[in-house]
Amino acid sequence: MTLWGGMFSQGLNPSAWDLNLSLSIDKRLWHEDVTGSKVWAQGLCDAGILTISENASIQSGLDQIFDEFSSGGFLFKESDEDIHTAVERRLGELIGSTGGKLHTGRSRNDQVATDFRLWMINQIPMLNQLLVQLQTVILERAENDFGIILPGYTHMQRAQPILLSHWWLSFFWQLNRDRQKLVYLKSLCASLPLGSGALAGTAFPVDREKLASSLGFESPSPNSLDAVSDRDFTAEFLFWASMLGIHLSRLAESLVLYTSSEFAFFKCADPYSTGSSLMPQKKNPDIFELTRGKTGHYIANLMGLLTTLKGLPSIYDKDLQEDKSYVFSTFDTVQLTLPALSGAIQSLIVNPEKMASSLDGSMYATDIADFLVKNGVPFREAHHIVGQVVQHALKQNKPVDSLSINELLPFSHKFESMDPSLFSPEASISNRNAIGGTAREAVKNQIEQAKSAINI
Amino acid sequence: MTLWGGMFSQGLNPSAWDLNLSLSIDKRLWHEDVTGSKVWAQGLCDAGILTISENASIQSGLDQIFDEFSSGGFLFKESDEDIHTAVERRLGELIGSTGGKLHTGRSRNDQVATDFRLWMINQIPMLNQLLVQLQTVILERAENDFGIILPGYTHMQRAQPILLSHWWLSFFWQLNRDRQKLVYLKSLCASLPLGSGALAGTAFPVDREKLASSLGFESPSPNSLDAVSDRDFTAEFLFWASMLGIHLSRLAESLVLYTSSEFAFFKCADPYSTGSSLMPQKKNPDIFELTRGKTGHYIANLMGLLTTLKGLPSIYDKDLQEDKSYVFSTFDTVQLTLPALSGAIQSLIVNPEKMASSLDGSMYATDIADFLVKNGVPFREAHHIVGQVVQHALKQNKPVDSLSINELLPFSHKFESMDPSLFSPEASISNRNAIGGTAREAVKNQIEQAKSAINI
Amino acid sequence: MTLWGGMFSQGLNPSAWDLNLSLSIDKRLWHEDVTGSKVWAQGLCDAGILTISENASIQSGLDQIFDEFSSGGFLFKESDEDIHTAVERRLGELIGSTGGKLHTGRSRNDQVATDFRLWMINQIPMLNQLLVQLQTVILERAENDFGIILPGYTHMQRAQPILLSHWWLSFFWQLNRDRQKLVYLKSLCASLPLGSGALAGTAFPVDREKLASSLGFESPSPNSLDAVSDRDFTAEFLFWASMLGIHLSRLAESLVLYTSSEFAFFKCADPYSTGSSLMPQKKNPDIFELTRGKTGHYIANLMGLLTTLKGLPSIYDKDLQEDKSYVFSTFDTVQLTLPALSGAIQSLIVNPEKMASSLDGSMYATDIADFLVKNGVPFREAHHIVGQVVQHALKQNKPVDSLSINELLPFSHKFESMDPSLFSPEASISNRNAIGGTAREAVKNQIEQAKSAINI
Amino acid sequence: MTLWGGMFSQGLNPSAWDLNLSLSIDKRLWHEDVTGSKVWAQGLCDAGILTISENASIQSGLDQIFDEFSSGGFLFKESDEDIHTAVERRLGELIGSTGGKLHTGRSRNDQVATDFRLWMINQIPMLNQLLVQLQTVILERAENDFGIILPGYTHMQRAQPILLSHWWLSFFWQLNRDRQKLVYLKSLCASLPLGSGALAGTAFPVDREKLASSLGFESPSPNSLDAVSDRDFTAEFLFWASMLGIHLSRLAESLVLYTSSEFAFFKCADPYSTGSSLMPQKKNPDIFELTRGKTGHYIANLMGLLTTLKGLPSIYDKDLQEDKSYVFSTFDTVQLTLPALSGAIQSLIVNPEKMASSLDGSMYATDIADFLVKNGVPFREAHHIVGQVVQHALKQNKPVDSLSINELLPFSHKFESMDPSLFSPEASISNRNAIGGTAREAVKNQIEQAKSAINI
Repeated sequence: MTLWGGMFSQGLNPSAWDLNLSLSIDKRLWHEDVTGSKVWAQGLCDAGILTISENASIQSGLDQIFDEFSSGGFLFKESDEDIHTAVERRLGELIGSTGGKLHTGRSRNDQVATDFRLWMINQIPMLNQLLVQLQTVILERAENDFGIILPGYTHMQRAQPILLSHWWLSFFWQLNRDRQKLVYLKSLCASLPLGSGALAGTAFPVDREKLASSLGFESPSPNSLDAVSDRDFTAEFLFWASMLGIHLSRLAESLVLYTSSEFAFFKCADPYSTGSSLMPQKKNPDIFELTRGKTGHYIANLMGLLTTLKGLPSIYDKDLQEDKSYVFSTFDTVQLTLPALSGAIQSLIVNPEKMASSLDGSMYATDIADFLVKNGVPFREAHHIVGQVVQHALKQNKPVDSLSINELLPFSHKFESMDPSLFSPEASISNRNAIGGTAREAVKNQIEQAKSAINI
Repeated sequence: MTLWGGMFSQGLNPSAWDLNLSLSIDKRLWHEDVTGSKVWAQGLCDAGILTISENASIQSGLDQIFDEFSSGGFLFKESDEDIHTAVERRLGELIGSTGGKLHTGRSRNDQVATDFRLWMINQIPMLNQLLVQLQTVILERAENDFGIILPGYTHMQRAQPILLSHWWLSFFWQLNRDRQKLVYLKSLCASLPLGSGALAGTAFPVDREKLASSLGFESPSPNSLDAVSDRDFTAEFLFWASMLGIHLSRLAESLVLYTSSEFAFFKCADPYSTGSSLMPQKKNPDIFELTRGKTGHYIANLMGLLTTLKGLPSIYDKDLQEDKSYVFSTFDTVQLTLPALSGAIQSLIVNPEKMASSLDGSMYATDIADFLVKNGVPFREAHHIVGQVVQHALKQNKPVDSLSINELLPFSHKFESMDPSLFSPEASISNRNAIGGTAREAVKNQIEQAKSAINI
Repeated sequence: MTLWGGMFSQGLNPSAWDLNLSLSIDKRLWHEDVTGSKVWAQGLCDAGILTISENASIQSGLDQIFDEFSSGGFLFKESDEDIHTAVERRLGELIGSTGGKLHTGRSRNDQVATDFRLWMINQIPMLNQLLVQLQTVILERAENDFGIILPGYTHMQRAQPILLSHWWLSFFWQLNRDRQKLVYLKSLCASLPLGSGALAGTAFPVDREKLASSLGFESPSPNSLDAVSDRDFTAEFLFWASMLGIHLSRLAESLVLYTSSEFAFFKCADPYSTGSSLMPQKKNPDIFELTRGKTGHYIANLMGLLTTLKGLPSIYDKDLQEDKSYVFSTFDTVQLTLPALSGAIQSLIVNPEKMASSLDGSMYATDIADFLVKNGVPFREAHHIVGQVVQHALKQNKPVDSLSINELLPFSHKFESMDPSLFSPEASISNRNAIGGTAREAVKNQIEQAKSAINI
Repeated sequence: MTLWGGMFSQGLNPSAWDLNLSLSIDKRLWHEDVTGSKVWAQGLCDAGILTISENASIQSGLDQIFDEFSSGGFLFKESDEDIHTAVERRLGELIGSTGGKLHTGRSRNDQVATDFRLWMINQIPMLNQLLVQLQTVILERAENDFGIILPGYTHMQRAQPILLSHWWLSFFWQLNRDRQKLVYLKSLCASLPLGSGALAGTAFPVDREKLASSLGFESPSPNSLDAVSDRDFTAEFLFWASMLGIHLSRLAESLVLYTSSEFAFFKCADPYSTGSSLMPQKKNPDIFELTRGKTGHYIANLMGLLTTLKGLPSIYDKDLQEDKSYVFSTFDTVQLTLPALSGAIQSLIVNPEKMASSLDGSMYATDIADFLVKNGVPFREAHHIVGQVVQHALKQNKPVDSLSINELLPFSHKFESMDPSLFSPEASISNRNAIGGTAREAVKNQIEQAKSAINI
């Protein structure tokens, strides 16, 4: 059965049927399709289009269909071209010709747009929860690893000592932006298409504001043409996931490096690493690599949807059917990746000694320059002096922090008053106590701020 | 002069200099760079790092630099590798070694992140204004073209009659979402990086909350590592433009079609069309084609940035320097396109007769089915009946709306009571009077709603 | 069973297992995996690493596995993490510990790279055949529709009359480039990774040139590090499909327009169009819309792979596992789309009368200018004169080709000698008889050229 | 002056002019535009459309224009909307109304397609040369660094020892594929559009085969409609650069890591690194980071073009004008990046001691397993045994290669006969002597193969 055969003298060619078929993808909208149909039938009844008993019959048929889906007992037929057809076909089987009244004043165009938005809205709490789970793991690490110092890098070169907790938290805030974006995404979904018909609006006096509130939308869509073709919310979701992917790719890349023998800041726990079929000694950080690699899928799906949408000529075009495969693919990838990543991070074994031993003397160069500044040397000049000190140390093949005051004096007489304990990770860190800095106190405040953020 | 030469024994190789150079791109941040530096110097002074007279000297030097830029009199030197270097170099020329104190406790990493966010914040009102300008043109058209009826299409097939005003407004709401997104974008920009140093935070007790409020930011960034590497706001802007591009591409595509001889719903005004170097008769809708084609640039720049960001290994990597070329390219394209598009739409010459003559009888098929529904036929059956009516008309080579009641009766006896005036665009339209529908009254309400939206 | 557990004290966490699992995707490589393994075992035997009887046992075990796959009787186990593991696990079940000798000197890194290249090589003839099928349909249309004239468009504005056959053939040549590209793609696949080990080469004296020729490759890869990480051939395939998608999107877009009521150059046959669930009269060109929409998937998969590959830090990274989902998704989409599209084009019903009636008089403007040129007027002047003639006709609301010689004379006295039969589609077409032009003779030659191309 | 104003009553609105203007971009086609015009004029003369003296006058005018461009003396006018207009305008100024005969039978559609293909063909040798330059640098490094051993990584974990030369050469072959692709690209450009007119072919009997051979093309295009709209060659170029970018991004990423303090395999030379404005000690590998970051631009431009091309409805659409900005941007980026990268690699200072000290004992695990295999243990069992050996060593906190035979015996009695010198980088490497392997002899052969490849 299709919902449209009346004026056709022949059925679809099998190759055309296969290309057109969307059931394998859109069947996961069954929950929203049945829910939306129940609200629509109620709306038709409220408007006097369905009698109370017709409505009751439809509601009960739809409830049974819902149960069949819930229990896994719903049987699709080969002729069901999409989820909407399957549901209406089954409704007819269950309640007879009254089932044919459900689609009054409605089109699959507004129906699928409604189903899809509702599905998206329904997933947002779960997506938020996955992010919170990862944030929590990161926050716990920030608390448990408090006090450990490691090199901070820029350009992959050692730059300044930082607290490991500070480093962990830098990823917390990225995920927090991703969570804030979900709030925006939800608001973008919350305009209800139902009641827009195929394009021009429904011809029956259904109360669209009541429909909206019944289904948990903020308001009915203001323009029926826009309502059936607007896929902004899908693009926004795919972009959301792309940014999440970017964030995770950078975290994952860092962890791939930090679990290498050269950095050795962390070791992967066995339940989150795999070996080699050839090399018996290998323990590979696959979870981080796959997390990084999956970024491609997120960006792919975004690019795909944008390409599909570009330049569509009329109000509703069949091309829009492709939207769901992009969205579901991204959604499934997020769901697959985040729990594994959370577990892999939680179980990482930290190596504070290796971190400490990677702090070399040149990393205090900024501290020395800052010392000169505090003693009246313009920063630009101080920077130059310390640059030459570092060059001198390199030539002498000595660590910068092993230079004596006497060795420093030729570069500036201000060094006379320098306290050599300036050359220490603790001193360097404690200097950076402004908001957002890496000093212990500032990071403790940051942890509190993060705890508040997670509870919103 | 570079800001970093102290420990280097040789200057950059010319090919490396050329690759590294960013001045040609980042010089447009001069306004923000000078402004940010003034606030930073004040912050240093408030913290007791600069004396009042040093600060006064720096402020006055920066003011002069600002004036030089404003008047076009600022002279770059070949050795200025970026805007920050140029400003600091010039400051030294103007006020001597005190100029070398400006960069105390600051890094180009937090400086450029601040400049760039500030720039973005500064452009948002203008971007909003360009959108409002186009919305206004569309809204005026909706008002001026009120009452004109044209075919609404789905799948590029004639579907149902709609008001031209309704069609115009469908684009209004797309732009309105783009404007709402700007509000979100602004909030994403409003976290101040200044005071994050190169990565670990500044070592001087500058009041970052005061910095934030002085520069119009909501709050200081909570984590210095994140602050210097976070480019989410640039990706968000590029995605914003990509969605705008998608919206415009669909509008432009429609207008390319509607100005063709086959549709002929509109004619381009001469000042917004061009001819052919070979074919003397051609009048081409270049503005719409270029608008559609530019969508590629928006999506390109988004994809470029995402690719550049993917998998960056350390906190700040030089790759981030590429962010600006993507953003400025997109920004310039938006600025170039919107005014021309607004003008082209405003000056379109509408052809209501051609629109009217394109409404064929089959477009009332849904109305006939709805008639049957109102007379008790289940919709699914009514749909089938009317499908056969249409097929019959096609075989007879007659317009559907020319069929007499007698010709209809074999399909359903319910047709007996049908009023033939049902077959009219006005009747079809007035049926669709729910919120967001195409009925005159509903569209009038929609126009009011749009007027309110434009004033937010 | 995994192939690597020896040094691990714990199994994978379930979430990590799920993320790591590739069997559901790579199992379609079974044919190539078994084939490659047979050749590898033979190579080990030739090198004296396996005895003749060990090899015979492995060959027979692999033959049985091949049969099990062919007949659908192969049973996967939950513990099979990928196709390679499944095959080796089953081999052990069938032939005992000798099965454990198959992987000698081989790694999954070189194995999967070999399987995947072999798979790609194996698909090329079928991809070529799908293109030939579509080319053949187009060529048949060019022959069957010979003589029909329709407007040629630029900027969607009527430009010059062309032969419909000429129009069809313009798509033939695009597909021909796609076929030529397949030849290049094949050559890119033809470098054999097998024998590269995990990265550094195999430690056993296997004859890699014999391996290559046994498996149908041109030569062994020259560098083992490159061999295990080179995915250029997958990117090339995804780009190939993207270009094919671009070509098809333009053809599909044209056909969506040409089957609209406004153009009405073609009508979709019932077996290749669908209806509306709401509007009984609709007959939609879904196959063309879906063909156009699927372009997004091709470009998505290309973008995804490029993103995944970008910046990978070491020789083989697990991220590379993602390559197959991109490639298979694109491959399946090509296979799904082309047959339906071929059928839809073959069955299109042409409307030569509508095409003829869409040729308006202004389309001969170039011919008039060319007439003036042939009578000594410089082209640029002729172009200007005819531009004014067209403007005059528009103002008079007359078709250009209805202007009498007397009406033309004020614009140029050269019109005196003009033969009014110049104003005809046949005359216009027959003028354009250079190679590649739209004249009947030129198009006939082009058809012959196309026939030759299809047989290569 | 525009080339098309005849029938227009008003000029372009300034905003429309700005959007439409392409001169700032397409002016770099001047060389090809003038060259193509000279050949076209000659073709018109050969066909009897221009007299010999008219042709002589045009040739001499175009020669002068060529000289003006060459010497920088050509003056554009504000009214030149593109390079074609500028040249034709100037020709008129130089030789009067005969200049107006040049455009006979030609359109900007076939003209710009010709110019652009010619430009692309002209750049290929230079692009090839840039690649050869980088290949040469890499090959020289492979020769100069011969004998140095470093760890080979997979999953960023130490895997097996390899020759540094082998590692260098792995990038050589990637670039070699890029060079081979240029040959394909050239063949794709070599179909001449000139003589296709605006779309339908030229109406003058110009010998297109002679045009093709005069301009260095292989053949005239077979279909005029395809000829004016085919941009496959631009997409192919942009994809070529994207693959090059992927290759370079992986090389660059490796070098960013290998120049970090943790790896310290290389040090950047001063002329190819930069410092920090804040941290005096920093020496950053900017050239490698920028090379990696620029990958975004290549992929951006490819995605941009594909998006622009997708779904274009008619034969020539103005959207195609955007092609050049994508191509030129990519071209300029390649030209900017490769020389700096070549210099940076050439000047890298290698640290063989650090490489040697990074080879840890576990990297011989495969060699031990191979030893067991050679003594009759099935590989899968050997792999398991060695896995347990490694685990044992880890637990004992001993390097694997420090285990005595006695310590090994409990794992397998086959260890009895093992020669401890197996535990050495030299032994490990020399085992892998198949084609493409890392043994000294195999790498020497590979160097010879590379030398041959570079000379093709």
